[in-house]
Amino acid sequence: VVALPVEEQIVHLKKGLAELIREEDLRERLKKAQATGVPLRVKAGFDPTAPDLHLGHTVLLRKMKHFQDLGHRVIFLIGDMTGLIGDPTGRNAMRPPLTREQVDANAETYKAQVFKILNREKTEVMFNSRWLRRMKFEDVIRLCSKYTVSQLLERDDFSKRFEQETPISVHELLYPLAQGYDSVKLKCDVELGGTDQKFNLLVGRDLQRAWRQPPQIVATVPLLEGLDGVEKMSKSKANYVGITEPCTVMVNKLMTIPDALMPRYWELLTDKSMVEIAGMKHMHPREEKLLLARTIAAEFHGPTLAWRACEEWMRVVSQRQVPADIQDAWIEGPITLDKMLFGTGIVESRSLAQRKIKEGAVEVDGERVTYMRAFEPGHTHTLRTGKQWRRVVVTKKDA
Amino acid sequence: VVALPVEEQIVHLKKGLAELIREEDLRERLKKAQATGVPLRVKAGFDPTAPDLHLGHTVLLRKMKHFQDLGHRVIFLIGDMTGLIGDPTGRNAMRPPLTREQVDANAETYKAQVFKILNREKTEVMFNSRWLRRMKFEDVIRLCSKYTVSQLLERDDFSKRFEQETPISVHELLYPLAQGYDSVKLKCDVELGGTDQKFNLLVGRDLQRAWRQPPQIVATVPLLEGLDGVEKMSKSKANYVGITEPCTVMVNKLMTIPDALMPRYWELLTDKSMVEIAGMKHMHPREEKLLLARTIAAEFHGPTLAWRACEEWMRVVSQRQVPADIQDAWIEGPITLDKMLFGTGIVESRSLAQRKIKEGAVEVDGERVTYMRAFEPGHTHTLRTGKQWRRVVVTKKDA
Repeated sequence: VVALPVEEQIVHLKKGLAELIREEDLRERLKKAQATGVPLRVKAGFDPTAPDLHLGHTVLLRKMKHFQDLGHRVIFLIGDMTGLIGDPTGRNAMRPPLTREQVDANAETYKAQVFKILNREKTEVMFNSRWLRRMKFEDVIRLCSKYTVSQLLERDDFSKRFEQETPISVHELLYPLAQGYDSVKLKCDVELGGTDQKFNLLVGRDLQRAWRQPPQIVATVPLLEGLDGVEKMSKSKANYVGITEPCTVMVNKLMTIPDALMPRYWELLTDKSMVEIAGMKHMHPREEKLLLARTIAAEFHGPTLAWRACEEWMRVVSQRQVPADIQDAWIEGPITLDKMLFGTGIVESRSLAQRKIKEGAVEVDGERVTYMRAFEPGHTHTLRTGKQWRRVVVTKKDA
Repeated sequence: VVALPVEEQIVHLKKGLAELIREEDLRERLKKAQATGVPLRVKAGFDPTAPDLHLGHTVLLRKMKHFQDLGHRVIFLIGDMTGLIGDPTGRNAMRPPLTREQVDANAETYKAQVFKILNREKTEVMFNSRWLRRMKFEDVIRLCSKYTVSQLLERDDFSKRFEQETPISVHELLYPLAQGYDSVKLKCDVELGGTDQKFNLLVGRDLQRAWRQPPQIVATVPLLEGLDGVEKMSKSKANYVGITEPCTVMVNKLMTIPDALMPRYWELLTDKSMVEIAGMKHMHPREEKLLLARTIAAEFHGPTLAWRACEEWMRVVSQRQVPADIQDAWIEGPITLDKMLFGTGIVESRSLAQRKIKEGAVEVDGERVTYMRAFEPGHTHTLRTGKQWRRVVVTKKDA
C-alpha cells in the first residue's frame, strides 16, 4: 500500500467513475489499509465466453489498474460457473455449455490480453466455479433466503420484463445472488463493474451484510462510446478498436473519432489526470488526436510502434488530403485513365500520363491505380499525381 | 391391480375429492394399469415435523388407502429436506432445523399412526432428502430454468403477499419446485394433497412435462371441518379428534358434532359409498351419530372397543339426559344443597337429602356433588337424584 495522502488516492480512483457507493466508505478503507498495511481486495467479474477485448473493456481494466497503482490486490474473477451450465432453457442457441478445457483456454486468452494493462504480480485470476460448484441444494436455499423476490425484481431489466409479461425464468434470479455470493467468499472490499452491473454489485453488499461482513464499496465505470461518438463501443457495430489489432489499425481507427469525443477518451482510456486533460484544450485538434491515439496505442504496442504508426498516418493522410481549393473538370466518357489525366490538364501528354500510371504515381479516389482503367459517364472521381489534384465529372457524349 | 371395472374404480377414487385433474387421464391410466398389470405410483407428501395426526389428516390417508384398495402403490413421502434446513431466514423460531435423528424418530411416529389406515405392504415410505441433498448448484439452476417467476407468483399466497408487498424470500420459490421435482424423481402417476396444495401439485405436472414424463394426475381432498362444524379441524382450535386418543374420548367427542356435519364425516372419514351414505338419512340422528362414531373409532381401536365406548356413552349420557318434561321450582337463596333438595320436594326430608348427598346419589348440573355445597341467588341449576329431576331458580330473599 502506497504512502500517498488518501485524498490524492481518491482523486486517482474517482477519475472516470460513473458512480461510487460510497466515497466516505472508500476513504475509511483506504485509511485503514494505510494504517494496517493490508491492501484492499478489489474484484471485477468477467464472462467466461471467448474473450476478444476492445477498448470499451479496458475502461474497467484501467480502473482495476488504478487500484493496483496504489498497492491494492485485484481479483480478476472469471464467472465460469454460469458458462459451464450454459443456457439451461435451451432457448439461446448462442449459449451452449462450455467445457472445462474451453473455459481454461479462454482464461489464457484473457490473461494474454489483460496483462497489457494489469500488473500480473498484483492480480489473482480466479474462477467462481471453485466455490459455486460445491454448493448443495441446502446452501442454495440458505443463499436465496437472504433476498426477497421484490428486491430482485427491482432490477431494471427484470422489472421491465415483469411489467411487459416477458417470462423471467426462476434460475435467472439465482445469477445475481451467485455473483453477490462471490463477494462474500472473496471478502471483497471493492467491486468494480460497468454501470449495467450496478444492481448485481449492490446485491453483493447486501449479502455481505447478511454474512456479517462489511459491505463492499461499489464503483461503476461508464460504457465507452464507440468511434462514432454515439453508440456504445461494440464489435457488432464495427465502431470498436480491438486490443489485439495491429498498431497502425488502432491509430488509423482512433484518428477517425469526432473531436468532441477526445476528452472522454482521455478520461477513460488513459491514466492522464483530469488536470492534464483540461490542459489539452489548447492543442490543435489534429495534434491532440494524434497524441491521444499514440498514448492509447503505446499501451498495447509500446511507444516506438505507436510513434511510427502516427508518423505513417500523417504521411499517408496528409498526402491523401484533398485540398480545399481542388479544381473541378468535366470530361466526356467512357474514357481511359491516361486520356483523362491529359484531358483534365494535370499531365502534359498522354505518354507522360501512361508512364506515371506505370510508375504508380497516380491515385484515383485515394487508391493507387497502376493499370489502364476506364471510366463510365455519370460518376465523379478525385485524381491526384504528385501535388496536382482534379475533381473530374465524367459526362455523357452528346447524342 | 384389481380386476374391477374401471368406472367402478373411478367412483371409489372420486368419492370425497375436492378436485381431480383430470378424470379422463385417470381413466386412461387405470385402464393401462389393468392392461399391463403395472400398478400406478401414487404420492402424497408429509411434513417432517413431529406428527400428531388428527382425523383431518386421515382424509388424505384414506384417499391413499382407496388407491391401495385397487392394488396401486402408494408413496408416503416425508419432505425431510426442508425440515433439515429449517427456516434459513431465522425469523421463524418455531422452525429450527431438525437433526437426522429427529426426522427418523418422527418417521417412526408417523408409521405407527398411518398404518392404522394404510396397508403397510403396499406403502413405500421415502424421504426426499435422498435426491434433493445430492443436488448441486447447477442442478438447482437447471430445475429453476423450467419455471418462470410469474408462474410461481400466481400461487394464491404468493400473489397476495406480492400485492401487499409482504416480503417473499427467494428460497420460498424453490420449495414448490423441489416438491414438483420429487414427482419427477419418483415418476408419479398420481399426486394427492389437500386443496391448499393444489398449486404445488400442478408444478409437479409441469416439471414432469419438462422432463418428458406424462404429467401426474392431481387429486385434492378438502380440508375437514372440526367438531364445531365451522372451522377447519385443528389442534390449536380444540375442535379435533386425535387418532391416538383413547376410544371413549374419540366417541364422546364425535357424539358432539352437529347433525348437519354427519354426511360430510361419513364421506370423508369412512369407506362407506355415497349410496350407503344417502341411505343414512332415514336413521334417527342419535342412532346415525352413534354408528358414525363407532365406525370411525373402530378403525383405530377395533370394533369391540368402539362398541363398548358407544355403550358407555349411551349409559352415561342417557342417564344425564334432562327429561323434556322437567319441573321448575323457585327457592330463595343463599341456600345449602340439602335444604334445596328438600325445599323443591324431590327428597322427603333434609336428613334423607344429607344421606343421599353422602352416598353420591345427587347430581347438580350433570355433576355428582358429595359435599354440602351452597347456592347463591340469581342462578339456575338442574338437580337430579334417581329419577327425580328439578330445574331450580335460586331467587333473592325479599328485602
